[in-house]
Amino acid sequence: MITVAEYLFRRLQELGIEDIFGVPGDYNLSFVDMLENHKNINWIGNCNELNASYSADGYARVKGFGAVITTYGVGELSALNGIAGAFSEQVPIVHIAGGPALHKQDLRRKIHHSLGNGDFNCFENIYKNVCHTTASLNFYNACDEIDRVILDIWKYRYPVYILLPEDVATYLVLPPKKPLDLALPISDEAQLSTVYEKLKGQLSSANKACVILGEEINRYQINDQLVKMLEKTQLPFVTVWGSKGVIDESNKNYCGLYRGAMSSAETRSFVENADIVLAFGVSWDEINTVGFSHNIAKERLYDFHSCETIIHDRTYHETSMFNVIDLISKDNYIYEGLHPTITTDSLPNPLTGEILQKHLPSVFNSLITDSTVLLSETGTSLFNSGEYTFTGNSKLIIGKMWASIGYATPATLGVSIALKGQGRAILITGDGALQMTVQSISTMLNKHVNPIIIIINNHGYTIERMFHGKHASYNDVQEWDYTALPATFGGDAYTEKVFTMEELYSAIAKVQNHHDKLCLIEIMMDKYDQPQPLLSFVAALNPDKSKD
Amino acid sequence: MITVAEYLFRRLQELGIEDIFGVPGDYNLSFVDMLENHKNINWIGNCNELNASYSADGYARVKGFGAVITTYGVGELSALNGIAGAFSEQVPIVHIAGGPALHKQDLRRKIHHSLGNGDFNCFENIYKNVCHTTASLNFYNACDEIDRVILDIWKYRYPVYILLPEDVATYLVLPPKKPLDLALPISDEAQLSTVYEKLKGQLSSANKACVILGEEINRYQINDQLVKMLEKTQLPFVTVWGSKGVIDESNKNYCGLYRGAMSSAETRSFVENADIVLAFGVSWDEINTVGFSHNIAKERLYDFHSCETIIHDRTYHETSMFNVIDLISKDNYIYEGLHPTITTDSLPNPLTGEILQKHLPSVFNSLITDSTVLLSETGTSLFNSGEYTFTGNSKLIIGKMWASIGYATPATLGVSIALKGQGRAILITGDGALQMTVQSISTMLNKHVNPIIIIINNHGYTIERMFHGKHASYNDVQEWDYTALPATFGGDAYTEKVFTMEELYSAIAKVQNHHDKLCLIEIMMDKYDQPQPLLSFVAALNPDKSKD
Ligand SMILES: Cc1ncc(C[n+]2csc(CCOP(=O)(O)OP(=O)(O)O)c2C)c(N)n1
Ligand SMILES: Cc1ncc(C[n+]2csc(CCOP(=O)(O)OP(=O)(O)O)c2C)c(N)n1
Repeated sequence: MITVAEYLFRRLQELGIEDIFGVPGDYNLSFVDMLENHKNINWIGNCNELNASYSADGYARVKGFGAVITTYGVGELSALNGIAGAFSEQVPIVHIAGGPALHKQDLRRKIHHSLGNGDFNCFENIYKNVCHTTASLNFYNACDEIDRVILDIWKYRYPVYILLPEDVATYLVLPPKKPLDLALPISDEAQLSTVYEKLKGQLSSANKACVILGEEINRYQINDQLVKMLEKTQLPFVTVWGSKGVIDESNKNYCGLYRGAMSSAETRSFVENADIVLAFGVSWDEINTVGFSHNIAKERLYDFHSCETIIHDRTYHETSMFNVIDLISKDNYIYEGLHPTITTDSLPNPLTGEILQKHLPSVFNSLITDSTVLLSETGTSLFNSGEYTFTGNSKLIIGKMWASIGYATPATLGVSIALKGQGRAILITGDGALQMTVQSISTMLNKHVNPIIIIINNHGYTIERMFHGKHASYNDVQEWDYTALPATFGGDAYTEKVFTMEELYSAIAKVQNHHDKLCLIEIMMDKYDQPQPLLSFVAALNPDKSKD
Repeated sequence: MITVAEYLFRRLQELGIEDIFGVPGDYNLSFVDMLENHKNINWIGNCNELNASYSADGYARVKGFGAVITTYGVGELSALNGIAGAFSEQVPIVHIAGGPALHKQDLRRKIHHSLGNGDFNCFENIYKNVCHTTASLNFYNACDEIDRVILDIWKYRYPVYILLPEDVATYLVLPPKKPLDLALPISDEAQLSTVYEKLKGQLSSANKACVILGEEINRYQINDQLVKMLEKTQLPFVTVWGSKGVIDESNKNYCGLYRGAMSSAETRSFVENADIVLAFGVSWDEINTVGFSHNIAKERLYDFHSCETIIHDRTYHETSMFNVIDLISKDNYIYEGLHPTITTDSLPNPLTGEILQKHLPSVFNSLITDSTVLLSETGTSLFNSGEYTFTGNSKLIIGKMWASIGYATPATLGVSIALKGQGRAILITGDGALQMTVQSISTMLNKHVNPIIIIINNHGYTIERMFHGKHASYNDVQEWDYTALPATFGGDAYTEKVFTMEELYSAIAKVQNHHDKLCLIEIMMDKYDQPQPLLSFVAALNPDKSKD
């Protein structure tokens, strides 16, 4: 016999989870304790629960799935924004909240970490708003409910929530008989063949075809399958912002980043004038489409998702993109239509003097190796992130639509843990965002991970100055001594504070040689300097809004 | 005409609110901008939203009401734990979340800070679980809904939530014609006289009567009314943990802290053997009652609250303690029964050598002046807080039942802002709790407030070591250089790190002379040293649990 908690841990391992983030508390100590010397799962204690949930998100984006453990009420509610973000961005996280023993709940008393109104379901009810499925475990349902939740997260890749009362956690059950039969969404045969026939008809006559790769490819980790299909068919492809780096951008059929009005003229014209567009797992959200400025005629768009296909405004339920990709791969189809010529701007020559937003892309781009995971925080930094080139296994992580500042720093911890030395995380964050969740740097030092942290110190919420209060004090933040942070957090790091391009280049060269420790570069910049892509974004969003 | 936001700000002023905590974001910038040069309300920008909500809580406990402004989704969900805590502890906070313009909501698109599922009510729905009332403002209902919410928070003193879309915020409306007729819960005449007759009968024949003062007295700010009533009737009184300091403890009729099994023998016996006990606004929760170890016979307890009275298991709705207190005050009743003799332990002589938990109460007690607000964070620090003496206007603030660690540091900011120089906040926090929300120290420095921050550095989550994992690494926290924090956060402070009692005494003497700046003392302590009151608490909670 094993405990319910151990049963859960074994199921998490089937998802590939090797590390769990969280904060201990008396309602979860009974099972956090089991992780102290666990054979297969490490406990990554965080300074607070929001950071833990963000870390689990970063981890999931690299390893496929993430998990976070919090305590009842106080802990789980602190993590809510992180889990809601994972829902908004479709990132699969298992959130396990420790709960009071069932007999304590039954008394409906005013016990600590409860609302005092006798309602012990309220936190699960809150989580129902931001999770694909939730479960409240008891002595009778624990194993079945765990299995249901795991099957669900595998299938849909959205966050799930488990309330695990302290006494249920230690209750003894039979170990799983065999691994779960983890299944992806499957298609209805008839629907699928209707869809595929339509596609084939339109594709075979197309002289200009285009594939758009979306986020779901990352979430379902079917990148290799896509690469093979694209290789075989020779179809030209683009990515969206949220999936940038999903496939090696040095691939000769890669045609750039499609983001409506902000795309390069060549990429935009190719996508929007194609006879047929095959979109796989694309989120048509405000950021990916840059204020819904995309313009792909409905008659030419095949919008494939994990569970459905939308063609010409009609939704075919139970038709999964996995099957469509399979069918295309097995077919004899080879694209012989047009391939666009995409010119990429060459990197500017080394620059000198003041550091401006427009200089940053080329500098940061030079840091990206084949195994880099680059996290670009919401703020001005997000807007330069479309300019980098991701080759090999390198990729971009952004908060995108949820756009919660403070996400990227703890997510960098999660990514670093997930990478297990196979690659390096680079964080680019604003000062305002960093201040939200700065204590994750302490956890990085504690775990001896070695990301490169680049802080854009432009004295406040620069991106907001474009919308309101250019000079207003509510957009200022307290001026910290950022390079003192690692020492204050009790760790060893390589740090630099740079004012000029010369200093920046030299710092960049040095951090590449400090593989073995956390590196932190603070870049001093002007308060009002906005990156050009942000200006374009705002213009696309709101053509009559100018920079005051 | 004025904007809806200004209409709201005027109503907030009627609650006595002069400062609003929060974080700007594009969905609230349209109205945060109005605070930049506002005549009567200051904007207190925080590093993150959880901290802002905790600060608003601390502020409300001093000034009566607090307010926090966040942005849609990402901001408001980050603040949820703070607002849930305010619900659990009955602290009145107005949470104003900026929302997308109504026409944007109507399109149900995947816009930033939304879940992407077209549901724009979900965050308000989440807040319904932890607020007394919520409102979603539009062009037609804005003023009425604002008034409804303000009347509600005045009456019930629980948190409320307002969703204020960016376009509604700037919509023009007529200014309020007159201040709201802010009303407290009132009693049904018949019910009230039944209750009062019962009370009078039992009280007049009582030889041993006792009053218990609870949290609602603070929340409704009726301390003066209570003082007068107690003065006139000469009734002996006690407080509970959550209301400690509600009335000057040097009052000759003060009979100590009643907390069930943890009370002093004299206090316990007086309360539990009284012929009649009048409880005003007491929360009978796990902490106040120390694991429900209180023992007051139902036939002798009159349990008065703002909206109801419970006598002998029967609840009289619509009978308010305000009216009862009024009636008693106007009556000719004077208590002539027994007054217990309560002996208070005298402070120990100056101590030397290693700093132990058992030495702390007398040391910290010496810091309390007539205008101190002392915040004792959840953790070992909470458990010493029953030992202090609060005289004059000094009082204690604890997270109590919600017990969310990290609360006390931002709450100290809120208290300091609320005090407006009339008194000083003292924070006593563990290292683990401090790490949760440490960036509030940056905001304190930014606002030039001058609390005394005392950090108990016992190398981790010492209180948890009592329950599980005495030596486990999940109870360790990263060792920070705490005295470096103010400088790292760009501010000027007086700091000391102390290892011995001699150093502690000297540091304590010095901070009393540094009135004008933030003072921070880091106290180095043993990892396993637990305060005696915590041991008593655990023993009361779970008689068979011993310290392993
Ligand atoms: C949790 C959260 N709170 C508030 C916001 C609103 N917001 C968006 S960007 C931003 C400022 C970012 O400033 P900084 O990190 O310094 O980046 P900069 O634009 O200056 O480069 C804020 C406050 C948000 N997105 N998320
Ligand atoms: C938000 C939150 N997360 C987790 C907990 C569980 N918890 C209760 S006390 C505690 C440790 C407190 O440690 P510290 O602040 O160092 O105080 P000490 O007991 O060591 O004095 C923790 C993690 C909590 N109460 N609140």
